[in-house]
Amino acid sequence: MNTSSPNSTIRLYHIALSPFCRKVRLVLAEKRIEVELVEDRYWEAGSEILRRNPAGKLPVLRMDGRLLAESQAICEYLDETHPTPALMPSSAPERYEVRRLCAWFDDKFNAEVTRPIMTERVWKKVMRAGYPDSRTVKAGLQAIKYHMDYMTSLLETRRWLAGNMMTLADFTAAAHFSCLDYISDVDWTRSATLQEWYATIKSRPAFRSLLADQLPGVHPAPHYALLDF
Amino acid sequence: MNTSSPNSTIRLYHIALSPFCRKVRLVLAEKRIEVELVEDRYWEAGSEILRRNPAGKLPVLRMDGRLLAESQAICEYLDETHPTPALMPSSAPERYEVRRLCAWFDDKFNAEVTRPIMTERVWKKVMRAGYPDSRTVKAGLQAIKYHMDYMTSLLETRRWLAGNMMTLADFTAAAHFSCLDYISDVDWTRSATLQEWYATIKSRPAFRSLLADQLPGVHPAPHYALLDF
Repeated sequence: MNTSSPNSTIRLYHIALSPFCRKVRLVLAEKRIEVELVEDRYWEAGSEILRRNPAGKLPVLRMDGRLLAESQAICEYLDETHPTPALMPSSAPERYEVRRLCAWFDDKFNAEVTRPIMTERVWKKVMRAGYPDSRTVKAGLQAIKYHMDYMTSLLETRRWLAGNMMTLADFTAAAHFSCLDYISDVDWTRSATLQEWYATIKSRPAFRSLLADQLPGVHPAPHYALLDF
Repeated sequence: MNTSSPNSTIRLYHIALSPFCRKVRLVLAEKRIEVELVEDRYWEAGSEILRRNPAGKLPVLRMDGRLLAESQAICEYLDETHPTPALMPSSAPERYEVRRLCAWFDDKFNAEVTRPIMTERVWKKVMRAGYPDSRTVKAGLQAIKYHMDYMTSLLETRRWLAGNMMTLADFTAAAHFSCLDYISDVDWTRSATLQEWYATIKSRPAFRSLLADQLPGVHPAPHYALLDF
């Protein structure tokens, strides 16, 4: 008996607590696209990541007979091929604003906050790559305050981050915050506005699979999966 | 007499030899959008970069009554609002491939090649921030070989990087290569295929403004502005 998945099965090669993998998972779930999740511990021997993506990065989505890489490119592809519910607005200026904010989180927020904090507090432990550097963690926790204030200023005049509809920008930001929230590194008392935004997006059915994540050896904060936190 | 530009003038705050600024300049020129270039030496006192872009990054494009940031978001906006000539294909799978390759160059190639080499060989000198670290330069020159081989493999079955039409992926890649070519750090003898691709894109009128760039104290390679190099 062949127990492997047929080639038509949509499969996401991912790793838990990667904001880029989470972003794609959220978009797939929001669009009700069923997907088989396959963990790829790419730092261990035997990983076939380079065969699937010459860039050597996760996530990789097997779909429509191809292997797709780069989370933003994947998400825009999913939004174009599965337009309901729409995660991109229809006008060019609004679409620009969504893309600007996606880049803000995937580039700037990731470099200043997610990557340094997750590397020190999670990945060094999981990959057995030494002890966390507390100065790096501290710099990340300092930087997140500025980002939270900026997001709060956006949400003071908008219902969602990029405007009045929920978009890919919200899922991108939520993907990053959910990783940091897993290890309890978001001080929600800093902004009731931002906490309310996160509680709303966290309560969507699309978020369920993320809240069930467990990384061996790294336990989630007690409030991580609570919708009323 | 008021010599400042009227608010309707399209203006790009940029810095020479930034691949992200060059990408936007190429797209503006290809679409024949007239733009006033304003150099913003953001590391010097008096720069107003944070007032124009809270992310503190260049380029910033003043257009349509707004200040636009993030090069990829700007380029997609320009392609949507000025669709001729089109720099994005019409089908979702082809658009995905363009976006994947834009991310490849702006993220991976930039981190492994452009940023380390330009930081050490150009920016440290211009910003008076110390001497270049030769090991970093060497690692960048080693990494570019792998990228050139990957691009060559793409161009063996495609006319342009993302397929059979010239797209934003070609301009993104060319923007990075043109910075490195200015300081003569591209070994074109490695791939005749790639050299031909670059010669074709370099000979487009859109490239002229880039080839006229001069950075005080950092002189271009003798072949930099030659179309037959």
